[in-house]
Amino acid sequence: MNRNPIGVFDSGVGGLTCLEELRKLLPNEDIVYLGDTARVPYGTKSRETIACYARQDIAFLEKFDVKMILIACGTVSSVLMTENLFDGSRTELYSGVIYPAVKSAYAQTKNRRIGVIGTPATIRSGCYGRALRELCPDIKVVGKACPLFVPLVENGYTNVDNKVTRLVAEEYLDVMKKENVDTLIMGCTHYPLLKDIFADILGDRVSLISPGAEAARFAAKELMKRDLLNDREGEGSCKLFCTDSEELFSENVTAFLGNEVTAEISKCTL
Amino acid sequence: MNRNPIGVFDSGVGGLTCLEELRKLLPNEDIVYLGDTARVPYGTKSRETIACYARQDIAFLEKFDVKMILIACGTVSSVLMTENLFDGSRTELYSGVIYPAVKSAYAQTKNRRIGVIGTPATIRSGCYGRALRELCPDIKVVGKACPLFVPLVENGYTNVDNKVTRLVAEEYLDVMKKENVDTLIMGCTHYPLLKDIFADILGDRVSLISPGAEAARFAAKELMKRDLLNDREGEGSCKLFCTDSEELFSENVTAFLGNEVTAEISKCTL
Repeated sequence: MNRNPIGVFDSGVGGLTCLEELRKLLPNEDIVYLGDTARVPYGTKSRETIACYARQDIAFLEKFDVKMILIACGTVSSVLMTENLFDGSRTELYSGVIYPAVKSAYAQTKNRRIGVIGTPATIRSGCYGRALRELCPDIKVVGKACPLFVPLVENGYTNVDNKVTRLVAEEYLDVMKKENVDTLIMGCTHYPLLKDIFADILGDRVSLISPGAEAARFAAKELMKRDLLNDREGEGSCKLFCTDSEELFSENVTAFLGNEVTAEISKCTL
Repeated sequence: MNRNPIGVFDSGVGGLTCLEELRKLLPNEDIVYLGDTARVPYGTKSRETIACYARQDIAFLEKFDVKMILIACGTVSSVLMTENLFDGSRTELYSGVIYPAVKSAYAQTKNRRIGVIGTPATIRSGCYGRALRELCPDIKVVGKACPLFVPLVENGYTNVDNKVTRLVAEEYLDVMKKENVDTLIMGCTHYPLLKDIFADILGDRVSLISPGAEAARFAAKELMKRDLLNDREGEGSCKLFCTDSEELFSENVTAFLGNEVTAEISKCTL
């Protein structure tokens, strides 16, 4: 048993999809969430800059004596595979979104043809391909950078009938149809908000994997396995931190999730 | 006469449209350009955060003993109107893009109905409206935030036939048609790359104002008026600085301007 909080971070509000899943699975855990909104997005930046920002995010969460850090950012999770972000850190338990997503995708694919969509940094890193081929060397992985999906989601272009998003999604997903993938990893926390459009374009026989939700399930299992769950009764606390203003964070969350923020929000400096 | 360099900055590569105009007008001036690519974009961030970043950008350029600072970023130029970014700075001569653009728009409008498009931060600031009404109290100003234009331009969706950009532009510019504006200020350095699409949607009778180019012309005139031009013969030097990696900057410039970078690029820390 361990009553310390769980730390979760992302470049902005996208990781809240992962946080929501975590709170559903482990309602009595305390959670500290950090969104680096003053420097968002990470996905269009270089590997070195992303690694530098991620180390500062981790250092911030460690001040809360977190028992686990969950990297709810697809871009940072990709960089984690090549740079050891936790070198010198005192967090023993951490997870990005790659491994949980890859495990789930591999369990679901029948034809061993898996698609991965993500930010330019995630796709450039090739991390999903490497992780999938470690599980199964003859798997076919089709990667496609989709840089317009994040701004589309952040501007509320998420409705299944939205013509702009549909046009962009058809262009991006064309290669997935041509390559006949039967499983698609939505490798950025923003993408699950477009899943109805993806399903419409790709058809029902393609399984859609949400790495944020998979990571939350993975974290819950790991904490249980290591006997690190919080044994306290009652609902856990949730603290949200952002690096730009609280008002802007609150507005962005409402635009992103469609509902008001109920947790406490504080601005912090990294 | 003054042989010190001119400083230009922007949140990223967008300000290069202003820099190009400045080099055309004043080919023998030395120029130092800073693009804060590690924290781009500014336009979706809060006023306080933008002001904080802009002060760091200015402090960096002042190390080069610049004789003038040109703020080639529509977002920072807007914030400049409410926060005095140059308080405590030793730069005597500086300009944002607002005043030059407003002067030109006012000279061109016939029906006194002027449209302004920009980032959310620029439109939220209301700076163009205030500046225009100072020139002429009964002018009608129609503002519209266009958050998707920057990512569209940065991803090369600039061709006049691009269906996605056209769809988005039709949505954003609808209010300009309804309000019968005859002059449109393209209040973000990225937007001039979409001017053919704007002209197609709005028709030839609407004048399009490019604040970056206007600011470059304004700077040239001010330097001339104050006898601060460089009297040296031969081509001036151009140094580019960025806060994320040089490779990424170079790639982004090529995607943005369609041509290779010929000037020296260095990474810097603010």
